[in-house]
Amino acid sequence: MKEKEKSQNQENIRTGTSPETLAQALLDNLYYVQGRPPELATRNDWYMALAYTVRDRLLHNWVQTLKAIRQKVKVVSYLSAEFLVGPQLGNNLLNLGIWEQAREAVSRHGLTLEELLDQEGEPGLGNGGLGRLAACYLDSLATMEVPAIGYGIRYEFGIFDQEIRGGWQVEITDKWLELGNPWELSRAEIAYQVGWKGFVEIYNDPEGQQRRRWVPGRVAKGKAHDYPVPGYRNRQTNILRLWAAEAVESFDFADFNLGDYYGAVQEKVYSENVTKVLYPNDDPEVGKRLRLGQQHFFVSCSLQDMIRIHLLRGKGLDSFHESFAVQLNDTHPAIAVAELMRLLVDKFLFPWEQAWEITSKTMAYTNHTLLPEALETWPISLFAEYLPRHLEIIYEINRRFLDEVRRKYPLDEDRVRRLSLIDENRDKSVRMAHLACVGSHTINGVAALHTELLKETVLKDFYDLWPEKFFNVTNGVTPRRFLALSNPFLTGLITRKI
Amino acid sequence: MKEKEKSQNQENIRTGTSPETLAQALLDNLYYVQGRPPELATRNDWYMALAYTVRDRLLHNWVQTLKAIRQKVKVVSYLSAEFLVGPQLGNNLLNLGIWEQAREAVSRHGLTLEELLDQEGEPGLGNGGLGRLAACYLDSLATMEVPAIGYGIRYEFGIFDQEIRGGWQVEITDKWLELGNPWELSRAEIAYQVGWKGFVEIYNDPEGQQRRRWVPGRVAKGKAHDYPVPGYRNRQTNILRLWAAEAVESFDFADFNLGDYYGAVQEKVYSENVTKVLYPNDDPEVGKRLRLGQQHFFVSCSLQDMIRIHLLRGKGLDSFHESFAVQLNDTHPAIAVAELMRLLVDKFLFPWEQAWEITSKTMAYTNHTLLPEALETWPISLFAEYLPRHLEIIYEINRRFLDEVRRKYPLDEDRVRRLSLIDENRDKSVRMAHLACVGSHTINGVAALHTELLKETVLKDFYDLWPEKFFNVTNGVTPRRFLALSNPFLTGLITRKI
Repeated sequence: MKEKEKSQNQENIRTGTSPETLAQALLDNLYYVQGRPPELATRNDWYMALAYTVRDRLLHNWVQTLKAIRQKVKVVSYLSAEFLVGPQLGNNLLNLGIWEQAREAVSRHGLTLEELLDQEGEPGLGNGGLGRLAACYLDSLATMEVPAIGYGIRYEFGIFDQEIRGGWQVEITDKWLELGNPWELSRAEIAYQVGWKGFVEIYNDPEGQQRRRWVPGRVAKGKAHDYPVPGYRNRQTNILRLWAAEAVESFDFADFNLGDYYGAVQEKVYSENVTKVLYPNDDPEVGKRLRLGQQHFFVSCSLQDMIRIHLLRGKGLDSFHESFAVQLNDTHPAIAVAELMRLLVDKFLFPWEQAWEITSKTMAYTNHTLLPEALETWPISLFAEYLPRHLEIIYEINRRFLDEVRRKYPLDEDRVRRLSLIDENRDKSVRMAHLACVGSHTINGVAALHTELLKETVLKDFYDLWPEKFFNVTNGVTPRRFLALSNPFLTGLITRKI
Repeated sequence: MKEKEKSQNQENIRTGTSPETLAQALLDNLYYVQGRPPELATRNDWYMALAYTVRDRLLHNWVQTLKAIRQKVKVVSYLSAEFLVGPQLGNNLLNLGIWEQAREAVSRHGLTLEELLDQEGEPGLGNGGLGRLAACYLDSLATMEVPAIGYGIRYEFGIFDQEIRGGWQVEITDKWLELGNPWELSRAEIAYQVGWKGFVEIYNDPEGQQRRRWVPGRVAKGKAHDYPVPGYRNRQTNILRLWAAEAVESFDFADFNLGDYYGAVQEKVYSENVTKVLYPNDDPEVGKRLRLGQQHFFVSCSLQDMIRIHLLRGKGLDSFHESFAVQLNDTHPAIAVAELMRLLVDKFLFPWEQAWEITSKTMAYTNHTLLPEALETWPISLFAEYLPRHLEIIYEINRRFLDEVRRKYPLDEDRVRRLSLIDENRDKSVRMAHLACVGSHTINGVAALHTELLKETVLKDFYDLWPEKFFNVTNGVTPRRFLALSNPFLTGLITRKI
């Protein structure tokens, strides 16, 4: 018998989907990933073994997607501060179409699929609807075979768990990474530096032109952690790429040797705090500061990553918008408009006008709220302290934008005040929704009624100015998670009847 | 052709050692562990793929050792604050006897084994000789087929790296875990709580007996990280188990919601600091405090782990010393004498005398120094603040011990002062070497001359008291790392000539 025939008769242990192969793969992963024989394995060991077995079967398509992203295809970059993706095991089994085979394989080891599904912790990386919307979009993009990268934050602690103690509700941190995360591929070599604080330096470039650049006072490093996002029974497996912060540099060993241990680790701790926790409440000032830091951190890492990928394609940044369509999920990533301008103008030395053309051809903005008071703003003082160069860039964007408004609506200074990126009425602050509207080629609401009301209320002045930018995308939810996974009986009934 | 014959013709992808199988396993691990096709792989991706290929081949024997440790065999527990194990890939290839096959497999992908060996970071988990001695012992124990667990600390930053900047030497933190660690099996479910600070509580047990117990002021959790330690071309693969500290509890969400973010994470940060860094310098007070914390932390986790394993064997703790022989590498783990007493007396309610018999039958002590000033001591004030119950226990051990000394040497109060566990001469402090000598059944030096001088100098009084406890174990170094790995040419010459 020839070698080739033999291997055809026998399924590959890492891709085969028969119950026999899956049952053997489970044992292999228990041994070789968890380092445990069945008689010493805990429920979590078995969960991990099954998760790695499923992950192996995701990775073939995943690698194909990685290759595609290096090619000339246009990639959707979905920027969102929250991705409420839900447990991965069940969804991946369903999308791979191996639910029943996995159930059978697990039962051969005397376990039930249900107890292993129960073992998985919920990645609570969102507060609610906005994060779930982001996860549903990722699912749809993969299912519709659109190459996409979801960019967000790898919060070490997700949204808090609730417990009742002595009759009172108490909040408990969600240590969702505690038992390890089999769905995560740590990309230690995909890392970018992100600054904050510091000052703006004026210098002459080699051509003698005066330029400005930011000299940050502190720098953290963002490291990529990738999660495969499979489409429903197709060959597309997209990427959810979450950034975790860590210290760039050694801590100060001079302090350390003098015994000031806490002084010495402070820098490191400070940097890692950026992605420590998902914010449940952004009212107080310290919280605000951290949240602005989080937004800029993940946006900057993501844009630097897109630029790296684009340059690897061998093209100049003048065609950046042909490689990436950046969707801003609410205003949390709106700083992207200023950060991309900064990178293009300060780092890659593009003229302002060209940088602006690239930026506004790249960005699109999804609005989530009709409440004026819910539209995100940041105090100018906070911006000036944390992101001084971005504030300068926002002022320049605003100056040019308001000139355009004044040309179109002469002598209508009230309209100018309403449209300005800077709110001068209350404490001076930056209107992030306005930054997103001005920097985006497209603005959408999340339901037909919502979009219509947007045009009439909070974004009316922008609709008057640029009616062509507005359109609607009605929120959907994935029928995989919200029907097939949550109600198999109803799923069966519907499948039989239609 | 029968199924069985087929599988015999084809090597298992995770255990086979032919160059063909190893070359395919490399590709598989590149795909399924690193999630990268060859054309997108970095040198580190290939290193990781080879490391996981080698690790797969270690794990069969490893799992056998895990099973053996659950049985009735006696296990050596080697407690050391430092393990300078050196790079793992080369050593593991050598011990598995697959160096040449791996070289051939790597070359089939257009790479050299040397460049992948170079990619591995040095785990700098020791300051020098003491840590290397510990690593050599682990190697020897595995090679001599003695079941053993090395217990130590997973320092997040090892001993600092040196760089020359502007003509000056600067110290750079050793971020040895930065690119991931393929040799580590994270054991999230093997975790113990360790306290510090707080107070001692007096209470009556159900039998009405007055007892004492420690109520720590702070608690951290120690999580196990396991490293396989293979013997040289045999079937023994022992365990190096290193403890990493993390916060037990959620941080204080009440603070958090009030916006005191740094206050809120302080508890967590404080706990994780315990294993943050290997101490290059223990002179200053803050450093001392941390180092005592590190010692107690890893010793307590290790003893709790041994007790768990012993109880899993289905025997009472009265036979604990039949399950584990604990070797104290220098005085860094000497707190083990007090901690095992505390666990037996306070937690498992053993009578003092029986607990003492178990403890002293369990412990053995390796001395590393003849310099009186290099013998470790801790100020009483520090002990009282950080480990108040341990200090009480040390006082009680000392009281009983000095009674024994006085019986043997009546009216020799000078000898009593010299032997006491408490140094009353200078600032009052605990003599850790004396605690180790009193609590151990055996004391050894690390060279014949060293042991003889020990008997005549720093430990003379103990030798007078208990000559039968003293013996010598001359330090050796593993010929694998220090000859075969470092000088293959000389190795070849010697092999041919003898």
